[in-house]
Amino acid sequence: MNSTTPTERPIILITNDDGIAAPGIRNLLEAVQDLGDIYVVAPDSPQSGMGHAITISRPLRLNQVQIFGEIPAYQCTGTPVDCVKLAVDKVLHRRPDICLSGINHGANHSINIIYSGTMSAAMEAAIEGINSAGFSLLDYNFDADFTLARKVVREVALKLLSMERGQGVLFNVNIPRIAEKDSKGLKICRQANAKWQENFDERLDPMGKKYYWLTGEFQNRDHGEDTDVWALANGYSSVVPVQYDLTHHALKAQLEKEWQP
Amino acid sequence: MNSTTPTERPIILITNDDGIAAPGIRNLLEAVQDLGDIYVVAPDSPQSGMGHAITISRPLRLNQVQIFGEIPAYQCTGTPVDCVKLAVDKVLHRRPDICLSGINHGANHSINIIYSGTMSAAMEAAIEGINSAGFSLLDYNFDADFTLARKVVREVALKLLSMERGQGVLFNVNIPRIAEKDSKGLKICRQANAKWQENFDERLDPMGKKYYWLTGEFQNRDHGEDTDVWALANGYSSVVPVQYDLTHHALKAQLEKEWQP
Repeated sequence: MNSTTPTERPIILITNDDGIAAPGIRNLLEAVQDLGDIYVVAPDSPQSGMGHAITISRPLRLNQVQIFGEIPAYQCTGTPVDCVKLAVDKVLHRRPDICLSGINHGANHSINIIYSGTMSAAMEAAIEGINSAGFSLLDYNFDADFTLARKVVREVALKLLSMERGQGVLFNVNIPRIAEKDSKGLKICRQANAKWQENFDERLDPMGKKYYWLTGEFQNRDHGEDTDVWALANGYSSVVPVQYDLTHHALKAQLEKEWQP
Repeated sequence: MNSTTPTERPIILITNDDGIAAPGIRNLLEAVQDLGDIYVVAPDSPQSGMGHAITISRPLRLNQVQIFGEIPAYQCTGTPVDCVKLAVDKVLHRRPDICLSGINHGANHSINIIYSGTMSAAMEAAIEGINSAGFSLLDYNFDADFTLARKVVREVALKLLSMERGQGVLFNVNIPRIAEKDSKGLKICRQANAKWQENFDERLDPMGKKYYWLTGEFQNRDHGEDTDVWALANGYSSVVPVQYDLTHHALKAQLEKEWQP
């Protein structure tokens, strides 16, 4: 089921969390469209910060759209993870060879992977055994320059396509906001140990009642030179290989001795 | 900032993902209310499956409610992760000593941790450095028997309170649906390697248009006797120590050789 016969073109599933009409997903698609048969299943509206949310309290809609020429494309009323689940179960006639998510408008390095819809979509595909990557450009602007990002997407997609199918390899790829000529290439990294220091913006509505906007300050507590944050600050695109066994194995071993002697 | 002076009672932050009015959170609260000063900040409506979602496209409301007697309690319009962020930044006068999330109505073992709002709330607290645990009872019924679950909550809470503050220790605790007398106690476990096989339920609305309900079948691919799934099937409450460095360190080492020789 996972193998590709030599005469068959690879199937590439594309999704994102900024919504199917965002510039990032179009740039991703254009970077890889000659590498296989592309299918797009993406949210119909922005889903940033949705993490690994799934939709269980209401049903989902899936509507075919024609915004990428001849490429089959569907917009979904659910989250990025819902999109991948629906694509695999209802849209594709066989499992995709790879899944690419993004290009996200804004960083998803370090702890941001936890909150990222872009990465959760790619992770859902990886849980299904599909080799996958999420891509994020460190530029929130609508008219961001995707030149370097497109080159990186293509390079990583070719690497994924060269790998054995069905492993559920997963990469978190972030691209710095620099010109292509200043790029030092890809760097394999670990996730930096960082966090957000919350600082809610408290306001009063016209009725005098309080409401809050989530804001915060990014705090990197990790000065290692093998982290994604370091790589991005030093001209590299960061590639973090990702897994989803959240067991803290060292603490498990310690507690087995202390609690179950 | 993280230390508790001997004369000061611990502050215990309580949240959940089933909503502030669910039976599970009341049982959690009643199991630990004599152990410290309790504060409840929880969603105003069910948020199951929200994963680590945060709310960034709309502002949040926080309304004090009086449903737990004298215990300060706030309902929030956001996700479980939003609740923890707001509690730490806006509700509490100092960092809580521990954070307890749940008791969830239904299992959050193995891969379910990824989709779980209960566990994401506890993880958010752990990222803040607060020792935390999420609790889930393997019983979806509104009138589930929480007797064993309350005992487990209290036991784990006492263990967390005995630990050094500020470590961000995190436990995923699941309680089997058995009578207290049949319980074999706590077992330290690793996350079982399992997944959901999607099987969307396709229906037609009154206008004849398709819509989909997310359903699926749980598939355990892991027969290890040190997993949470094994423990729960054998009369134990499972305790998985959790971390949030998602780096696949073994694959990182391999790719560093292959890609950057």
